[in-house]
Amino acid sequence: MDTALDIVTIGETMLRLSPPPGVRITQANEFDVHVGGAESNVAAVASQLGCQTGWISKLPASPLGRRITTALQSYDVELDIIWDHDDDGRVGTYYFEPGGKPRGDTVQYDRAGSSVTTLTTAEISLEMIKSASICYVSGITPALSETLQTTVETVLQIAQSAGTKTAFDLNYRSKLWNTTMAKNAYQSLLPDVDILIGAERDVNTCLDRSADPESIVRDLASTFNLETVILTRGKNGVVALSNDTVFEQPVYDAKTIDAVGTGDAFVGGFLTQKLNDGHNGTTCSSIEHALATGAATAALKRTIKGDIAAITPAEVAAVRDTDTTEGISR
Amino acid sequence: MDTALDIVTIGETMLRLSPPPGVRITQANEFDVHVGGAESNVAAVASQLGCQTGWISKLPASPLGRRITTALQSYDVELDIIWDHDDDGRVGTYYFEPGGKPRGDTVQYDRAGSSVTTLTTAEISLEMIKSASICYVSGITPALSETLQTTVETVLQIAQSAGTKTAFDLNYRSKLWNTTMAKNAYQSLLPDVDILIGAERDVNTCLDRSADPESIVRDLASTFNLETVILTRGKNGVVALSNDTVFEQPVYDAKTIDAVGTGDAFVGGFLTQKLNDGHNGTTCSSIEHALATGAATAALKRTIKGDIAAITPAEVAAVRDTDTTEGISR
Amino acid sequence: MDTALDIVTIGETMLRLSPPPGVRITQANEFDVHVGGAESNVAAVASQLGCQTGWISKLPASPLGRRITTALQSYDVELDIIWDHDDDGRVGTYYFEPGGKPRGDTVQYDRAGSSVTTLTTAEISLEMIKSASICYVSGITPALSETLQTTVETVLQIAQSAGTKTAFDLNYRSKLWNTTMAKNAYQSLLPDVDILIGAERDVNTCLDRSADPESIVRDLASTFNLETVILTRGKNGVVALSNDTVFEQPVYDAKTIDAVGTGDAFVGGFLTQKLNDGHNGTTCSSIEHALATGAATAALKRTIKGDIAAITPAEVAAVRDTDTTEGISR
Amino acid sequence: MDTALDIVTIGETMLRLSPPPGVRITQANEFDVHVGGAESNVAAVASQLGCQTGWISKLPASPLGRRITTALQSYDVELDIIWDHDDDGRVGTYYFEPGGKPRGDTVQYDRAGSSVTTLTTAEISLEMIKSASICYVSGITPALSETLQTTVETVLQIAQSAGTKTAFDLNYRSKLWNTTMAKNAYQSLLPDVDILIGAERDVNTCLDRSADPESIVRDLASTFNLETVILTRGKNGVVALSNDTVFEQPVYDAKTIDAVGTGDAFVGGFLTQKLNDGHNGTTCSSIEHALATGAATAALKRTIKGDIAAITPAEVAAVRDTDTTEGISR
Amino acid sequence: MDTALDIVTIGETMLRLSPPPGVRITQANEFDVHVGGAESNVAAVASQLGCQTGWISKLPASPLGRRITTALQSYDVELDIIWDHDDDGRVGTYYFEPGGKPRGDTVQYDRAGSSVTTLTTAEISLEMIKSASICYVSGITPALSETLQTTVETVLQIAQSAGTKTAFDLNYRSKLWNTTMAKNAYQSLLPDVDILIGAERDVNTCLDRSADPESIVRDLASTFNLETVILTRGKNGVVALSNDTVFEQPVYDAKTIDAVGTGDAFVGGFLTQKLNDGHNGTTCSSIEHALATGAATAALKRTIKGDIAAITPAEVAAVRDTDTTEGISR
Amino acid sequence: MDTALDIVTIGETMLRLSPPPGVRITQANEFDVHVGGAESNVAAVASQLGCQTGWISKLPASPLGRRITTALQSYDVELDIIWDHDDDGRVGTYYFEPGGKPRGDTVQYDRAGSSVTTLTTAEISLEMIKSASICYVSGITPALSETLQTTVETVLQIAQSAGTKTAFDLNYRSKLWNTTMAKNAYQSLLPDVDILIGAERDVNTCLDRSADPESIVRDLASTFNLETVILTRGKNGVVALSNDTVFEQPVYDAKTIDAVGTGDAFVGGFLTQKLNDGHNGTTCSSIEHALATGAATAALKRTIKGDIAAITPAEVAAVRDTDTTEGISR
Ligand SMILES: [Ca+2]
Ligand SMILES: [Ca+2]
Ligand SMILES: [Ca+2]
Ligand SMILES: [Ca+2]
Ligand SMILES: [Ca+2]
Ligand SMILES: [Ca+2]
Ligand SMILES: [Ca+2]
Ligand SMILES: [Ca+2]
Ligand SMILES: [Ca+2]
Ligand SMILES: [Ca+2]
Ligand SMILES: [Ca+2]
Ligand SMILES: [Ca+2]
Ligand code: NI
Ligand code: NI
Ligand code: NI
Ligand code: NI
Ligand code: NI
Ligand code: NI
Ligand code: NI
Ligand code: NI
Ligand code: NI
Ligand code: NI
Ligand code: NI
Ligand code: NI
Ligand code: NI
Ligand code: NI
Ligand code: NI
Ligand code: NI
Ligand code: NI
Ligand code: NI
Repeated sequence: MDTALDIVTIGETMLRLSPPPGVRITQANEFDVHVGGAESNVAAVASQLGCQTGWISKLPASPLGRRITTALQSYDVELDIIWDHDDDGRVGTYYFEPGGKPRGDTVQYDRAGSSVTTLTTAEISLEMIKSASICYVSGITPALSETLQTTVETVLQIAQSAGTKTAFDLNYRSKLWNTTMAKNAYQSLLPDVDILIGAERDVNTCLDRSADPESIVRDLASTFNLETVILTRGKNGVVALSNDTVFEQPVYDAKTIDAVGTGDAFVGGFLTQKLNDGHNGTTCSSIEHALATGAATAALKRTIKGDIAAITPAEVAAVRDTDTTEGISR
Repeated sequence: MDTALDIVTIGETMLRLSPPPGVRITQANEFDVHVGGAESNVAAVASQLGCQTGWISKLPASPLGRRITTALQSYDVELDIIWDHDDDGRVGTYYFEPGGKPRGDTVQYDRAGSSVTTLTTAEISLEMIKSASICYVSGITPALSETLQTTVETVLQIAQSAGTKTAFDLNYRSKLWNTTMAKNAYQSLLPDVDILIGAERDVNTCLDRSADPESIVRDLASTFNLETVILTRGKNGVVALSNDTVFEQPVYDAKTIDAVGTGDAFVGGFLTQKLNDGHNGTTCSSIEHALATGAATAALKRTIKGDIAAITPAEVAAVRDTDTTEGISR
Repeated sequence: MDTALDIVTIGETMLRLSPPPGVRITQANEFDVHVGGAESNVAAVASQLGCQTGWISKLPASPLGRRITTALQSYDVELDIIWDHDDDGRVGTYYFEPGGKPRGDTVQYDRAGSSVTTLTTAEISLEMIKSASICYVSGITPALSETLQTTVETVLQIAQSAGTKTAFDLNYRSKLWNTTMAKNAYQSLLPDVDILIGAERDVNTCLDRSADPESIVRDLASTFNLETVILTRGKNGVVALSNDTVFEQPVYDAKTIDAVGTGDAFVGGFLTQKLNDGHNGTTCSSIEHALATGAATAALKRTIKGDIAAITPAEVAAVRDTDTTEGISR
Repeated sequence: MDTALDIVTIGETMLRLSPPPGVRITQANEFDVHVGGAESNVAAVASQLGCQTGWISKLPASPLGRRITTALQSYDVELDIIWDHDDDGRVGTYYFEPGGKPRGDTVQYDRAGSSVTTLTTAEISLEMIKSASICYVSGITPALSETLQTTVETVLQIAQSAGTKTAFDLNYRSKLWNTTMAKNAYQSLLPDVDILIGAERDVNTCLDRSADPESIVRDLASTFNLETVILTRGKNGVVALSNDTVFEQPVYDAKTIDAVGTGDAFVGGFLTQKLNDGHNGTTCSSIEHALATGAATAALKRTIKGDIAAITPAEVAAVRDTDTTEGISR
Repeated sequence: MDTALDIVTIGETMLRLSPPPGVRITQANEFDVHVGGAESNVAAVASQLGCQTGWISKLPASPLGRRITTALQSYDVELDIIWDHDDDGRVGTYYFEPGGKPRGDTVQYDRAGSSVTTLTTAEISLEMIKSASICYVSGITPALSETLQTTVETVLQIAQSAGTKTAFDLNYRSKLWNTTMAKNAYQSLLPDVDILIGAERDVNTCLDRSADPESIVRDLASTFNLETVILTRGKNGVVALSNDTVFEQPVYDAKTIDAVGTGDAFVGGFLTQKLNDGHNGTTCSSIEHALATGAATAALKRTIKGDIAAITPAEVAAVRDTDTTEGISR
Repeated sequence: MDTALDIVTIGETMLRLSPPPGVRITQANEFDVHVGGAESNVAAVASQLGCQTGWISKLPASPLGRRITTALQSYDVELDIIWDHDDDGRVGTYYFEPGGKPRGDTVQYDRAGSSVTTLTTAEISLEMIKSASICYVSGITPALSETLQTTVETVLQIAQSAGTKTAFDLNYRSKLWNTTMAKNAYQSLLPDVDILIGAERDVNTCLDRSADPESIVRDLASTFNLETVILTRGKNGVVALSNDTVFEQPVYDAKTIDAVGTGDAFVGGFLTQKLNDGHNGTTCSSIEHALATGAATAALKRTIKGDIAAITPAEVAAVRDTDTTEGISR
């Protein structure tokens, strides 16, 4: 690694197996294969939008581990993989069954004991973290094992000490731990966080908040001394606070084909624009611009199968800056 | 067969061949293969919801006949198959072309002279029928041949005499016979029926009714001495009468992927719940509960490809008992 | 060629390659193959509705050239192909990426220098044109090369002189030329046109009109001495003028699976009905009937994958003449 | 029909449905769709090799009937279809299960009572037959119904009287009739035949021959007064007699992907070359050349999925006239 | 369970995921889904050949667990499933990558800690075992966990005490344990075994034998007091000893599409025939007949995708009793 | 670019579109999408075997251009892409139709005028070339345009001057130029080449040689002052000369699924091993070892779909160093 990365991330990426729409897992004769994880989703999106991004993880030295690196390399994400040569090493797997009223999409995890759960700070490239502009982790990673909880804590501390901005997305997963465990973990991590992203429901449940959005972001920012707080509110858009100012960003309308990874696309778009180095066809780094970029990226994600938004800066700008997507461009 | 079945059914099951959405049969290069028939759809749904169910039919001793048993066995339906060793034996086949405004789904039958059309009472296991709790037949079966009309009549008589409740779904098919023929057949069958299910339009056309729903169900119940009458009214839900009380059940909202088999899913859900043996996660056998279970099962069916709802009791209960299917469960 | 054709067309037909919905071209592992071009789309649609139709073009003598004739022959379109034996001959190709809010469908052309761009009047069967009832060309053809612009001009003149009605659809394509070039070409072609079809936007941009629809069609008809002018207005339907009378035709509601070729389906339906020879199950050739037939054909097209509406006269009549497409026909 | 056809054919064409290699029909979730029939296979092959060919048949006026015309039109075969508007009209269907040692390919017919079985001479275009150079029928057609047996007899007589050469391929199918029935039919047809093609086994079984190949072809030619007799002997190639001279033609080696239609490809290639009008890139009409063309076409067929050889004259000539197919042509 | 089973089995069944031939797992975009496990493969094969068979196992109460029961029920195998409601319950999974010289097929297991590894004798239906004619287990089951090793030991003892014949297939898997562990386990199990099947290599490696086949089977039979010993020798066929007589059975030639499950198909065919109740179209129960039935079933398996041979008694008999599979049966 | 690359390559990479086996392009309804080009194939193979590799090219700034970078990035090849923003920029495309006796695989190019044909030395990163250990180009690149011929010449000169070894594979393509043109180009390039790879046939045809292999390699080495000459002889293996010693390497037997890219896989394997930095699990850099590595990589390629061998060092070593690939590894 020679050049400093714009965004470095650390976490688990899973194999995602899904039957076609309208087919139940119990009857499926083939699964579509995708690769996804909150942190690598963010890295892949930001890479496509022009950032130098990296992803740190641990994978079994097996075809399945390499299936994941194949996917992430295709998005030009810089990888620091600790290869697990243990026979029992495994990749996390999840089965995604697309639904539709009156049943939702469902996720069946088979991820316990994956290789990444043993990842320690000693194994990873601290230089990659220290030299980056932003270090991003999601709340899923500390939920995977005690070892990872410690690793995340250490990584965030090292990053902040080195002047790398830290970004954290709560991402509470009820199938991995309960709200009490999550709350404890979040509270020991938040002192090392600069930019906090959280779904309103997760903030309410895991951080015990229950006020109007603006009050919540003000409260969180002051409680945890955060530079930026972003409260994502589903169809109600986003309320954010940055350096004491509150912003609102509505969602862009989208025809959803696959909702998985929408939040990660938002984060990838937001962080890229915030770094303001012209990657997105504009050098404006205002928080408004960054939020709009995130929202546009998220809307595009919903039209694309898989966890990762395959997009270009121009497509994001078109959604963000213009109105018209009617008809066929030809 | 040792244990008495909860629900025994008798009828034809066809091979269903369908091109992908947006592709016309005239251009199709591959057909998706499914298996469906009103009675076996009901049996497969009820089996998944916890009943012991059976299906009686006649099939050619050929790969196509076995394609059908393969499918129904996968749902753990108990089979009593009369194997037709005649070279000319055939399975009924239908080609299903999914549409969408301004053209509807269309069905092209190729079912004339299928093996089941020669099925006589002498060939089947009467013990299976006599020992069951419910014997279900649809109005399609007597439409297939005079032989089958006689067989259905005899079976319903034998069932009632043996204390097995009889359930009949009008299911008028204009491509098989006309309303006069159907009316004559229905009228000779209805004296042996306990539970009648009928679409409002079929009741109007084939049973010459034309009143408000409540009047119709009261009229039918008293005319034919029925324990239960269920009038299905499409998007307007269901009006039912049971032991002189009238009930209404609205439909659950659904994103339809495949509407075929919706009515059968309703019947499968309704009958299972009505048997009240705790299979559905509740021991309540009230008619309200049964109608809601039927409606929830029907709504789930619409999200699933093929004629048979692949579902679990828990999924049905979730639709019936809760409101929320937003988001992704993970 | 012995019998006179009802409709003869001349133009380019391309290979269309498209990833499945939700998959980006940049990630695609397989492409669906279709064949499309404005003129052959019209010919294929009209052929299915009962016309004798023909298509004149130039194709490389290669598997890809033959892929195109295979497709058009399947619709029983009479072909007059000039086979290009030059090694550098090529078929036009376009990559179609289906979108969905907030990104539209996109088209990536790879059609420069295709064999048809060198097609001259000397190479084609003038008898086929002179003996036909209608000769149809779209505004895409003159945009492809100067040679083709000359060829189209000559063909329209020859047709008109021979008593063959000429039909022209503006079909402005911004990826092929600019509005100035288009305007010049259109203005030298329009004197030889009898029936003009144009999208409102194209008329405004390329023919410098900007009035209410009725004024525009009156203006165009008198300026260019047109028998019939059809202004297509997207969801607002169609405004037409024929022999000094103005007509309006709304669109039929449709669930769009593939919008490409909708305009061509309209033209194919309209021209067929206008020829009034009973092909469509009615011998009425009124302009109202023709517009309704076009609109019904166009609505059906939107439900079908590929550029060509695979339809029957009966299906078109059902949309045009009745209201009900609810439920499943069985 | 204006121009006389080179080859006119009459018979049944079926829908062929097949699971992928290695998948049993009893487990199949999708079927590949192809279209095949001995006579239309011959017509499609000869059309691609440059002949004007036609196919006469009767089909239900349904999507399935049109699926068949779509396929044959794509090969530019001229069609004379009697459309069966009877609700009970059907297309013959067959299920093809590809095998591999120790099980062979298997065919499951579902063709009884198809529309074509009622086709009478009165319904068809006799002009098409009288004006053609060759009229070809296979021994499958008279096996389908007594009506068709009469129709075939009449057609062959009319053809011969009009100076159209008649060609007949025994094609005995044990699933359709027995050898006694076939023998009777063949013997009443053979007096009207000019060119006889027959597999050695069929000749032995149905025409009671059992000698060496040369003796058999001599015997058949003199017994039935045949211009040409072709005895096909599987891997042992072909022995033919034409105008008292005997010829031998070995098979070309082929990697078989799909053996169905190999014999029809041979016939299509042979007849085309025999007509000697330069369609195959040579104007030689010697019987040797024709046999070699047939054998080359047959070998190519084996490499192609479906019943019909999709080929070009150049490809056939390359197999027939050169040795080398090693490597990749690029 | 009322009627006694012919064959009861106990073990693990896994989800098998495989890319198409020629595609590496590292690049795969979709996986074909199959279900396989030595014991259930045997049960499914024997069921199709006419036996009443059962399979006992433990599965997570999840869509993936139900995916497995769906598959086995489709073969009409009687199931005794202990449903694991623990969140951490999982199905064993394996990724199968089809190869071809110079790389073989490869298997990547992800099966550690699957639900079945905790299956105890107390959980299962002993009645099902005691009343069966044969109880079959493979050497994979004791390799999965110490708990299962104990369970298998107890089950075999209970079976033998109850007069149920016990059959055991060594099936050594080097990815699960080493030869020392296997040897210890096998030696404590073999005293409870009546019928032993073993690959020559496994017998040599894990049971320390190294003599000619006949000596080995004699030695094993006397050492472990076995009724029947079958030594499978790959392409060299099978050498068996039963009641002191030695038999040889060559393999039937096969075009291999999928070799997985070949051994299980042999066992299923062998045991079925040995039970001699006419299921296979012959009432002969001689060991020769049983070995030939096993070999024929095994050869057919190789032509079928997935772990389970989808076959009929007639197909097996055709391979076993006749020579000819040339050509197409039609 | 910070670290020096092991192997830098420059050339064209095309989109490859191919119908499934047994389907002709003229009938195809879908194309499999792959990406291939001699130089990037070599880079992708060597990258997987452990080298740092790079690929320099020019691509249209379009989804199709990015389809190619997506593929190559997935193999972790370092890219230096000049993005062509011209509307007329295009990717080279080729249609690959898999054959099988008696027709070979065929390739249909549609690559004329692709963006790379305008690539000049001024546009590319010379530093990347100068710092690399090896610079590899194939003889296809100079065949694409005069501009590219000049670019290749300059690049080889600059590389050699900077101490970067130059490797050149003749790769004569008769569809791109003739032997005279190729000979002239080769002769002006060879003075700047260190390592020459050439198929025996190309050497004979384009370099006018016609002796036994050993004489040819000696002759070429002395004539052009080459460090290493490798003569590839199809099934006869390879004869090589390095520093005056002659070596022979037979081919490893392979079941060919896709032969495209076999030669590039050989080069990728050979060059990697020759660099001797332990990437391949051995630090031996002997020419014998390198040739065996190349041959093993080539054999593996033949079992994999697409132009690029997806392999691991361990798989290559297994073929090279051991004999046994029988059976299934589990
Ligand atoms: Ca990079
Ligand atoms: Ca292990
Ligand atoms: Ca059961
Ligand atoms: Ca028959
Ligand atoms: Ca025609
Ligand atoms: Ca060229
Ligand atoms: Ca024609
Ligand atoms: Ca059974
Ligand atoms: Ca059962
Ligand atoms: Ca858990
Ligand atoms: Ca790298
Ligand atoms: Ca352009
Ligand atoms: Ni996908
Ligand atoms: Ni940057
Ligand atoms: Ni390692
Ligand atoms: Ni399906
Ligand atoms: Ni019950
Ligand atoms: Ni039987
Ligand atoms: Ni398509
Ligand atoms: Ni007409
Ligand atoms: Ni096909
Ligand atoms: Ni001719
Ligand atoms: Ni001709
Ligand atoms: Ni008609
Ligand atoms: Ni499969
Ligand atoms: Ni038995
Ligand atoms: Ni339970
Ligand atoms: Ni592929
Ligand atoms: Ni290196
Ligand atoms: Ni640029």
